[in-house]
Order: sequence, then C-alpha cells, then structure tokens
Amino acid sequence: MIHVAGFQFSGVAAGIKETDRLDLALIRSDPPAMVAGAFTTNRVQAAPVLVSRRNIRSGLCSAVIINSGNANACTGRKGLRDALMMVGATAKVLQAPPRQILVCSTGKIGVPLPIDRIARGIRKAAGSLAQGAMMTAARAILTTDKGPKIACAAGKIRGKRFHLAGFAKGAGMIEPHLAHSTHSTGSGQAGSQQAGSGQATMLAFFMTDLALTRSVLSSVFRSSIEESFNRITVDGDTSTNDTVFLLANGLAGNKPIEKGAYDERKFSKTLRGLMQELALKIVEDGEGATKCVGIEVKRARSVEEARRICYAIGNSPLVKTSFYGGDPNWGRILAAIGRSGTTRNPQNADIYYNEVCVARKGLSTGARYEAKARKVMEKKRFSVTIDLHDGKRSSWIWTSDLTEDYVKLNSNYRT
Amino acid sequence: MIHVAGFQFSGVAAGIKETDRLDLALIRSDPPAMVAGAFTTNRVQAAPVLVSRRNIRSGLCSAVIINSGNANACTGRKGLRDALMMVGATAKVLQAPPRQILVCSTGKIGVPLPIDRIARGIRKAAGSLAQGAMMTAARAILTTDKGPKIACAAGKIRGKRFHLAGFAKGAGMIEPHLAHSTHSTGSGQAGSQQAGSGQATMLAFFMTDLALTRSVLSSVFRSSIEESFNRITVDGDTSTNDTVFLLANGLAGNKPIEKGAYDERKFSKTLRGLMQELALKIVEDGEGATKCVGIEVKRARSVEEARRICYAIGNSPLVKTSFYGGDPNWGRILAAIGRSGTTRNPQNADIYYNEVCVARKGLSTGARYEAKARKVMEKKRFSVTIDLHDGKRSSWIWTSDLTEDYVKLNSNYRT
Repeated sequence: MIHVAGFQFSGVAAGIKETDRLDLALIRSDPPAMVAGAFTTNRVQAAPVLVSRRNIRSGLCSAVIINSGNANACTGRKGLRDALMMVGATAKVLQAPPRQILVCSTGKIGVPLPIDRIARGIRKAAGSLAQGAMMTAARAILTTDKGPKIACAAGKIRGKRFHLAGFAKGAGMIEPHLAHSTHSTGSGQAGSQQAGSGQATMLAFFMTDLALTRSVLSSVFRSSIEESFNRITVDGDTSTNDTVFLLANGLAGNKPIEKGAYDERKFSKTLRGLMQELALKIVEDGEGATKCVGIEVKRARSVEEARRICYAIGNSPLVKTSFYGGDPNWGRILAAIGRSGTTRNPQNADIYYNEVCVARKGLSTGARYEAKARKVMEKKRFSVTIDLHDGKRSSWIWTSDLTEDYVKLNSNYRT
Repeated sequence: MIHVAGFQFSGVAAGIKETDRLDLALIRSDPPAMVAGAFTTNRVQAAPVLVSRRNIRSGLCSAVIINSGNANACTGRKGLRDALMMVGATAKVLQAPPRQILVCSTGKIGVPLPIDRIARGIRKAAGSLAQGAMMTAARAILTTDKGPKIACAAGKIRGKRFHLAGFAKGAGMIEPHLAHSTHSTGSGQAGSQQAGSGQATMLAFFMTDLALTRSVLSSVFRSSIEESFNRITVDGDTSTNDTVFLLANGLAGNKPIEKGAYDERKFSKTLRGLMQELALKIVEDGEGATKCVGIEVKRARSVEEARRICYAIGNSPLVKTSFYGGDPNWGRILAAIGRSGTTRNPQNADIYYNEVCVARKGLSTGARYEAKARKVMEKKRFSVTIDLHDGKRSSWIWTSDLTEDYVKLNSNYRT
C-alpha cells in the first residue's frame, strides 16, 4: 500500500450494521483538495447524493464521510437533514467548512439513519485518522462485497514523485451511468429529486497528491469514468446512490498539469488504469458472479448502436446464464442483438469467444469450434466479440454471469 | 375439451427431440380457414417465421405444421429450404395448396432440422388427425414447459352456437413484442432477415368455427394480442420464433360478424379472455417461476411512459428476486422507476402490493404495512400497483419471479 501525501483515512464500527462490522469511513485531505465528482443518473437520488452534488460546487474537499449499512434513501426530509447533519458533524470535528465535506451512503433503503450513533461514529473516526488506514476505510464502505477493492499507482511527473490511490465497493444494483459534476459543471441538475433508494451501490474514491488545473482534473476524470465505471453491468439495475470522487491536493509539488501537456496524458493513463482495475474488481465481485466477460461490438454503424447492443447482450438473463454454464450459446447472443432493434443485418454477425469464432455470418462454424469455445469459457475472464460487418464504430462493456447465488443473495432467502 | 367444427389435430414423436417425446403437431382446417397472424419483432427471425409471413398473405390456411425440439434458426439457406419442405410435405399429404400451409418451429438453435425424420413425421401426423386430439397437439409443441396450455370457450351468436379453442407454449426467452401480419397487412416486413435463433419461444394457436369479415378478424386479433401476449415478460428476452395464429373457418354458419356490431364485441371479449388465460399460463410456467405478478402503473403522463416503467420494474432482476423471496422491497421498485428515466417525480409514487400501500409519496408507511405486504406476497398471484400522481394514463404487464431454477435451467448445468 502506498501513502498519498496529505491524505488520512479511518474506518470504524458505528453500529449502523446489525453486527459489529465496520460501517463508517472517513477520508481527510489536509490541505483541502480540488475535487471532481460523478453521480448516478437515476432520477431517484438518495439524500447524500443531493447534498454532495451541492457541496461539490465549492470545488474544494476537506473530507468525505461514508456510511454503509443504510443508504439514507427513500427517507424524505429527515434523510436530507441526516445527510446534512453528517456533513455538519464532520466539518465541526475536523474544523473545516461544511461546504468542503462530501457525504455518501450505501445499504438498506427506506430506513432512517441511526443518526446519534453516526454522530458518535464520526467523532471516533476523526480520532483514528491515519495515513496508513486506507484499507480500513475500504473495508468500512462494503455491503455485500466479498472483500475490499483497492488500487494504487506511483510515478514521476517532471521530476516530482506522485501517488494515486483509489478504493471502491459494488456487488449488486450495478449498471452505473454516471454524469459528471465538478465545481464548474455541477449546477442545475440536483434540483427536483428529494428521496431515493439503493441497495448495493457503486462507490469509488480516488486520491492523488498531484497538482493539476481544474480543467485537467475535470476532463481526465470524465474520460476515465467513461472508459471504466460507465462500462460495467452486473444486473442492469442502476443504483440511486452511485458516486465517484477524485481528490487532488497538490502536495507532490509539481507544476500544475495543464491541458494538452505530455503530463496530462501520463496522468490520464494512470487514472484510467486504476479506474478500470477497480471497475473490473466490481464486476468480478458482482453478487454471485463467477465470471467476468468483456463484450465488444465491432463494425457497427455508430458508437451508440454498438453500445446498445453491448448492453442488450450483457444484461440478457439467457446470455448471462450461458456464461455461468460455460455454454457457448451464440444463438442467444444473436437473439439479443436482434431484440436490441438496432443493427440492420444481425444475420451477418460473426461471434467470437476470445479468438474462437463460433458463428460466421450468423451460421455455426461447427462442433470443433464450439468445443474450443467451451474451453475459453472455463476461464474466469474472457471476451465475446461480435463483428457486425455493418459500419466502422465499436464499443465494449464488462458484464458478469448470472448464478443461483445472485438469486439467493437478493431474494432475502429465509430458509 | 370442446370440438371446434372443421378442425382436426394430431401430435406425433418424429424423432426431433432426443428422447421419444412428442415433437411434431399438425392443425388442420377443412374447409380452409381465414387466418390472422402475428410474429416476433426481433430483427433476427427464424426460417419458419419468414415462410409463414409470406404464406399468410394468401389469407387462407388449410393447416399449421409445428415442430418442437429444434427452432430451425441460425440455419441459413438450408433452414429456409427445410421450412419450405415442411410446408410442401404437409401440402402434399393433405392435398392443399402450399400457400395455405403455415409452419412454426421451437427448440434448439443453430442445428439443422432432421428433415427426413420430419417428412416421415408429417405423414404420420396427417394419418392420425382427429377432432379430439387437440391435447396431443398441445403437448407436441412444448419445450421446457411443465405442461400443455389449453383454453376453450363456446357460446351463441345470433342463435348459432360457436366454439373457440386455443393452445400455447412458452417457458423462457419470453417478452413477446408481436407485430400483426394478416393477408392484407403482412407485406414488406419479412424482407431482409434470413437466419434466426430461439431457444424457448412463445407459440399460440386459436381456432374458431365463427364466420367473420376479414377486417373484424384482423382488428379483434390485433387488439386481443395487445391486451395479452404483448403484456407478458419472463426474462425480457424476445425470441426469434414467437408466433400467434387465429384461424376461423365459418362452419358455425352464422352471418359473418361485421365491424361495429354487438357480435364483434362479444367475439372480441371471448378471444381476449382466452388469450389472457393462455398468456397468464405462460408466465406462471415461466422457466423456474413460482409467482405471477401483475405490474400496473397508474397516473403517468402517457401510456408509453407507463408501459416503459412497467417493463423496467417487471424485468429488474432485483425486483424479480424480491418477488421470489416474498420481500416487499419497494425501494428496488422505486429505483427501477428512476432508472427508466421517464417520469418526472418518482419520489411522488405510491406503491401497493394488492391493496396494501407500502410507500406513500416515496416514503415507507411503516412495518405494519410491510408485514401485510409480506402476506400478500405469499400468494402465487398478486399485483404491484404504482400510482405516479403525474398524469392520467396507465398501463400494465404480467411478469414472473426470478429463481435459482431459472438459472439452473438456462445455464446448461453439467454437474
């Protein structure tokens, strides 16, 4: 684990979850960091999303307070008051302006937060902040995840050593469609929604000591999310609490990275790599998932068409169960393409499992290739590629398989 | 079981399925019946769909030949030749014009039909036609269905006794979106697709001895499908083989039912009732399903908006697993509404399980109502109603729950 200069973390058991597990995490940046954020586009938005959307417009972030075990969603005005109270309590104990505090929640819905316990938890969390405690914080944000998800990178930019670290949680209700909201672009959207609902949710936090201009922060954040978190699906259900933040406090002492510079590409590559690593971990740890499958659609007429076909395939219960069973059932893939109503000639499609072509121009290539594809599908990670022969555009996503365990986990199985 | 004058049926084991089960069904009408048909809107269409689409333009139907165990989909030119051969063999043995023969297939994909066995089967089926053999035919079209699905009605129109009977199959890959194709409206659409793919599929056949005008046949068929088969979903996967036919041979001897007459409403009500009965049976027998849930969205701004929300809820894996678990997890419903991106104020929604209101204006009504809703969810059939308070339009669908058995059935589980 690396240390990112100026950042401290803590994770405590505040008594939000029923057992004595970690359920409250705190990220602190001293000095305050520049911040970029992205939030769910679900029209139902949880109270912490509304509060963070507003506070992020300050452009600076001293701390992020995150609770698990309760999404503070579908909780009406009390929920909004509670989210503001979490911000206020964190600001007070850290002696920071409330507008520099961001807040996230994930967990059960429709249940009021145990706000007194959280207030005590915040004081406890502030008291145990430490540079080396990122793993504890990463554990404290989990819900149905099997384990913490952390990624780190370090390097040099113009002779200055910099660090970048991130952690995330996911598991279910995962098909993020995030819209970006930085200090400059975050206005307007937060308006009308008041209550929300999530169950599992995707949360991810990135910290760096690099110095960058606001425009670089914003554009690199945006493009990296498009190439990572906005390309994953577990069950096609977009949560009401999905949130990603990037904090940059400048302590590396580099000259601020500017638009178009070589440094920007380097930083962009590093951030995108970290986001992709965590996005993949979320899919691999999708509820009940045993496999992570890349879906790539090539030679479509437009990127949007390719993207729609990717999601039609990646969210098809029949395709996902065939991934689970290791059955190269390309007919289900072709049916999903046809159902998506986009491409003109689905019967022209070639379908590959990794390098193995099981269908050419919509027809089986024979039992030998099907047997090879079965071998491919024994892997934990593989890709399905569809060549539509219909244009020049392509897109890709990552999805998981659909298993009995997904059903068990989500049916509130009481036997 | 009732007899519909002029109709005969048979079901035989032709050796298409691996075991010695029934897999070939024949419906005969003598005299030839007027016919209306509706076919999948999946852009990938199986060979029998293409052939039936063409033949139905003749407006008359002497027989329908249906095989299960093989969908004759993703089978290219050979598939098309095979479908035409099934038509030709049936026409020959029944001494009817080939254009009056319709053909359907359901089952495995990408595998050529065992056409010689089918040719022998067709002769066998023609030799065993009987008025009372509808149940045998209904069994012969099944794939993963647990049992045959039949519905019958009889009545009097202008002093003449009439009969109406139907049978269907479903199970998986069920979210039909059928477009109507009668002799007069069926042109144009069949064009460009050549190969297709299905696994399970919805097929339904209706027979009546009533006499009606073409316009009544077409319009009543159309509206009845909109209120039944086009309102069900099991897994959101639209098959490439979905087909519904209505045959009317006029042997009841009534004066042909004309548009706008009282008789038309009576016939319409009867047909819609039968279609709804079979559609419900398909949902109840959805792969692995243990529950059938009506989803109704009220007071939306438009029917289309209400409909989109119905499907967002009815296809959400998280909502469907909560149905299975008997957990009134209305937050997942609210999240699905928000994700559908349609309504303006999801937080205004009231949510009911049957008559029990679990959320009012997006907020929990408390543990007492949640307990009552749990009781409701113990039933095999119940409904979820969402009042959006946002307009005057409504829509509804039927969906099933998502269970471990769905996953087992579809993952080709080989342990």
